[in-house]
Amino acid sequence: MTTSVVRGLELLFDRPNEPLITPKGEEQVLFKLNKELLPPGYEDNGIVLNNRFGEEPGVQTIELKPLANPPRFRRASQLPRDEDFSLFLPRHQEMADEVIDVILAVPRNHMEELLSTCVYARGRLNPQLFHYCAAVAFLHRHDTKAVKIPNFAETFPSKFLTSTVVGEARTTTSVIPKGLNRPIITIPRDFTASNLEDEHRLAYFREDLGINLHHWHWHLIYPFRATHGNRTIVDKDRRGELFFYMHQQIIARYNNERLNNSLKRVKKFSDFREEIPEAYYPKLDSLTSSRGWPPRQANMKWQDLNRPVNGVNVRVSDMERWRNNVQEAIATGLVVLPDNSTQPLTIDMLGNMIESSILSPNPERYGSLHNNGHSFTAYIHDPTHRYLESHSVMADEATTMRDPYFYRWHAFIDDLFQKHKESPHVRKYQRSELDYPGIEVRSVSVESNTPGARSNELNTFWMTSDVDLSRGLDFSDRGNVYVRFTHLNHRSFRYVINVNNSGRARRTTVRIFLAPKFDEGGRAWLLSDQRKMFIEMDKFVHDLRPGNNQIIRQSTESSVTIPFEQTFRDLSRTGTDPGDPNNLEFNYCGCGWPQHMLLPKGTAAGAKYVLFVMLSNYEGDRVAQANVHRELTCKEASSFCGLRDRLYPDKRAMGFPFDRPSTTADHIDDFLTRNMFVQDVTIRFSDVTEQNPRNPRQQ
Amino acid sequence: MTTSVVRGLELLFDRPNEPLITPKGEEQVLFKLNKELLPPGYEDNGIVLNNRFGEEPGVQTIELKPLANPPRFRRASQLPRDEDFSLFLPRHQEMADEVIDVILAVPRNHMEELLSTCVYARGRLNPQLFHYCAAVAFLHRHDTKAVKIPNFAETFPSKFLTSTVVGEARTTTSVIPKGLNRPIITIPRDFTASNLEDEHRLAYFREDLGINLHHWHWHLIYPFRATHGNRTIVDKDRRGELFFYMHQQIIARYNNERLNNSLKRVKKFSDFREEIPEAYYPKLDSLTSSRGWPPRQANMKWQDLNRPVNGVNVRVSDMERWRNNVQEAIATGLVVLPDNSTQPLTIDMLGNMIESSILSPNPERYGSLHNNGHSFTAYIHDPTHRYLESHSVMADEATTMRDPYFYRWHAFIDDLFQKHKESPHVRKYQRSELDYPGIEVRSVSVESNTPGARSNELNTFWMTSDVDLSRGLDFSDRGNVYVRFTHLNHRSFRYVINVNNSGRARRTTVRIFLAPKFDEGGRAWLLSDQRKMFIEMDKFVHDLRPGNNQIIRQSTESSVTIPFEQTFRDLSRTGTDPGDPNNLEFNYCGCGWPQHMLLPKGTAAGAKYVLFVMLSNYEGDRVAQANVHRELTCKEASSFCGLRDRLYPDKRAMGFPFDRPSTTADHIDDFLTRNMFVQDVTIRFSDVTEQNPRNPRQQ
Repeated sequence: MTTSVVRGLELLFDRPNEPLITPKGEEQVLFKLNKELLPPGYEDNGIVLNNRFGEEPGVQTIELKPLANPPRFRRASQLPRDEDFSLFLPRHQEMADEVIDVILAVPRNHMEELLSTCVYARGRLNPQLFHYCAAVAFLHRHDTKAVKIPNFAETFPSKFLTSTVVGEARTTTSVIPKGLNRPIITIPRDFTASNLEDEHRLAYFREDLGINLHHWHWHLIYPFRATHGNRTIVDKDRRGELFFYMHQQIIARYNNERLNNSLKRVKKFSDFREEIPEAYYPKLDSLTSSRGWPPRQANMKWQDLNRPVNGVNVRVSDMERWRNNVQEAIATGLVVLPDNSTQPLTIDMLGNMIESSILSPNPERYGSLHNNGHSFTAYIHDPTHRYLESHSVMADEATTMRDPYFYRWHAFIDDLFQKHKESPHVRKYQRSELDYPGIEVRSVSVESNTPGARSNELNTFWMTSDVDLSRGLDFSDRGNVYVRFTHLNHRSFRYVINVNNSGRARRTTVRIFLAPKFDEGGRAWLLSDQRKMFIEMDKFVHDLRPGNNQIIRQSTESSVTIPFEQTFRDLSRTGTDPGDPNNLEFNYCGCGWPQHMLLPKGTAAGAKYVLFVMLSNYEGDRVAQANVHRELTCKEASSFCGLRDRLYPDKRAMGFPFDRPSTTADHIDDFLTRNMFVQDVTIRFSDVTEQNPRNPRQQ
Repeated sequence: MTTSVVRGLELLFDRPNEPLITPKGEEQVLFKLNKELLPPGYEDNGIVLNNRFGEEPGVQTIELKPLANPPRFRRASQLPRDEDFSLFLPRHQEMADEVIDVILAVPRNHMEELLSTCVYARGRLNPQLFHYCAAVAFLHRHDTKAVKIPNFAETFPSKFLTSTVVGEARTTTSVIPKGLNRPIITIPRDFTASNLEDEHRLAYFREDLGINLHHWHWHLIYPFRATHGNRTIVDKDRRGELFFYMHQQIIARYNNERLNNSLKRVKKFSDFREEIPEAYYPKLDSLTSSRGWPPRQANMKWQDLNRPVNGVNVRVSDMERWRNNVQEAIATGLVVLPDNSTQPLTIDMLGNMIESSILSPNPERYGSLHNNGHSFTAYIHDPTHRYLESHSVMADEATTMRDPYFYRWHAFIDDLFQKHKESPHVRKYQRSELDYPGIEVRSVSVESNTPGARSNELNTFWMTSDVDLSRGLDFSDRGNVYVRFTHLNHRSFRYVINVNNSGRARRTTVRIFLAPKFDEGGRAWLLSDQRKMFIEMDKFVHDLRPGNNQIIRQSTESSVTIPFEQTFRDLSRTGTDPGDPNNLEFNYCGCGWPQHMLLPKGTAAGAKYVLFVMLSNYEGDRVAQANVHRELTCKEASSFCGLRDRLYPDKRAMGFPFDRPSTTADHIDDFLTRNMFVQDVTIRFSDVTEQNPRNPRQQ
């Protein structure tokens, strides 16, 4: 019995640390390896072992086409199998370039060749490197849209779940055979610190599985480099601006949460010589390296990096020089190009400069501020490889958002972008750009979908959800092992917007934002600060009739979020038929803020918020898409993630109308035109824990 | 088919993190659990699961006698299964007291009751706690001398072997079925740091498996507390003095190694407020807690400890007060008792005071300096449990010697003992005590057992040895998995001592020590310093004929060491028949300095050493043993470990004649009487690696 090639490609992600010699997947699929496809170290006995597994009852096999010219992986094969992979390391990036090139180079629709190439690569490469490259390549090939890359938290659980879970899961699978009822493993809510640590109050946000999955997925879609031939995978529409905006919104959301937890907004890390008081003990273990992720103790400082093994040699003074050059570009509004000519600075260019991506206009001058900031902190405990230590969680897109320092660093990065937006070189909005003559928003309210709830009150609470660990539990018996984690959630609600259109029928973009009503001192906000606190809740196009219109929009429809099942992509609950149209573009759909984190937590007493609604003139918003006849196959989260193979679907600056300061308004009330509305709302948190109704077993 | 009770007791140590529901041992032995013996959490399905495993082919079973009154373990059951256990924590000690009491309380020769009691305890207790308590109890019961406690490095490999090994071993057992040739997993020689770190030059010593096994075993034989009823397990002959001497010799040996590696003698940690520049990244993972052992970054400082979860609340100022009180006792030569009366201070008392053990004459006044020093450093990264972190390697007897700080701390502890030895209250040796009239040592040489080697040259080199990991590889398929590690070794040699006895036949104790000839500045030693550098090589009783005698003594006979196979106690190579007299007192025999570390490493150029030989008057050495008719069943290492159920076999102060300063001699040459001899020797290191001929597979 054979299995389809698409399924074969999917199974390459199963149990990433196990060689392909053993069967993969719950259905026990064996790749029939030929001599050339054997992983190194198994030359002598690999075929015998592979055949033995093939003879076991219930095992299905996938035949593999021989490879005419196996790729060489001259660079990539140098990364040992048991090292952790980091995109922030130039050397690792070069390795990834090589592998992505090889996978993208297989001609379109040569699926069997693609499979053999990937089997070959998986056998020879570090599992994390292979996983990243295969995921990026499958996302950007046109013939692999139906390949479902499993949820990263399931294949690399050690990047998302505390290490004790893996130990408990091993006990369970070893003692309780597949098919019997295995106990669900519960992750305690507070495992990385206690309440003695103020920063720990934010752990539910920083360590949220969905948030970290989103961040990892975003960077999968938006790699910051590629070889020349595959430059298009980097050079996406408004990529640099989206880098700014997605991270700006993360900081805004984090600051919203901080205020709800009686903490001040996060302090930017702008003096590169100062101590970092925030410690972080991730309590994660890498199953790849069999090592714990290194912690950072309190009050450590950046030191010059010189780690030949990683090809890293950067001084703190380099960072200062790059920072100065970027600041100069912002102050002058001009970018200096390699030939010393200049060009007006745009937000998109600034994003590419600061990150930096290969689209940076002058990498020599502007360096790589953001990426190296991650590296400096990731190696703060071992800047010269003296102790043979690997990077901390800061150097991995899947784990970096767990660390309090991430927000201090991105507050600094965001501040650079904001300085640009505040500079005289960025034109401020005229009233005519903000107004939408003839449109008047007469009322806005939020209404809970829970019967009996109060108007304009939003409700948050804890929920426990289950995720299956078995795909990532290398070297264990098969069968599901569920891990139960606790996350924030909220009662679903709807926006009810009453609008009067005094003109004829027309189209509008409805923009909805939320911000705290008061600052950390309990004072009314200055708009110049509050604008940075507004978190985008939704943005959608709506057709207005003449006269009164009532717009009703569900919170679950948000352009920022994707539903729970899309974040966690539980394969066991959807078909695996590659012909199923529901599976198209499956992987792109994994990007998006998790629905369960749409709302800030609020407080038990009820946190005061303002909901801002703006109906903007669609004529100024519209984007002419080339690729209009595209079937939407999943809920998209275009605000943070854009759209696959299309332009960003809103012509305005990202974050409009709060992306830049107002020249006229000191407070939000002064800012309003008739097409805008602010409504006081309350976010009330209840300290109760409910079970996710999607959990496979209710307990 | 049933298996003997003794084998059952042994199998309690197999795969300590797996519940007894599954079969144990290579021969697949299943404990037939009844409902009362089921571990918590398995009440519903435990019997069903246990029976299922019993039906598998090849599984043998052990029937268990029901327990009339299962013990309660009121304290001990409070330690979660996934926490690391530390003897230095008073709370953990209390738990251990409770468990040891229960196991010791089973009447002698009630073996089935003992087994059921232990099965019950194993199911309910933290695996490390159970292992420690069962090992201590079996060592001290009279009916369990034949129970072979497996080598601790095999059952808890994560305390001895870098964590990557465990990952590789899982790959191997999962891919290559039992019975096929599995590759040997090689541990790299330098995995905890690079040569950028000066202290790393000593890693071969600090991280030696045999040294760490010895240290763990020593503390198993010499617990520092017990409940009142079992006080005898602590109150052994000259226990406090042996605590001093065994650790003094460790520091002396470490300092010998340091000089060979161009490092100065270790600096004592005596200012409790100073930074610790030595960082340590152990790169070990606990399989119990599924967490990496926390590292210590450079330049951290002790902070007041307040960890309610561990029952620890000690201030740095407490340590300073205890230190002052101990120093006062040393200065005055008097111990203040709880009733404020005084008593002359002895070295034995001082050992019990400083460690401290329950034999301390006044714990309130003298506190617990040594134990708490371990704790202060073990919790330096998280003194208040703010980050929910566990202790570092410093708090575990099996791992503490890996950390450079161990030696800084014990240099301080040793200095206290030396201050006592140097004080006027300790009588200095008279020439008449040192001399042995009528005995003249005319020559001493060391002769290699390797043909063609030079006289008075000792040769060291690297050796690779294999240890089987399968007993500790919880939740993996069975079958041996060998791990290959590299350790120092030396060519065996013999001492040739020519003595003239001008009197009649008599008995002597031959005492052999070794020390570097020059200090770190290349200068001749002052005896007051060199005496602390002398490492004991051997001590034995010899009958002298009148006239000339030639004494030939093999290096492998050393009273300090045990042979390789005794350190590693490879069960697969000895019988398991409990009636075999070779197995008596098997466990006590695990204590002893590893033979392969008998010699300091020396240098490639040849390090200059002096060999000191003294023939002392047996009349001053002899100890009247009550228990004379005792069969020796293994090679003993009495110098460091004493003798089971007997007095320490040398009446002199431990370390004699170097345990205290000389009032007359400035240099070793001035010190010599005719019954002593010093011989210059060279220790030459060859940077070659040989395979241990005992390895099961030669590669």
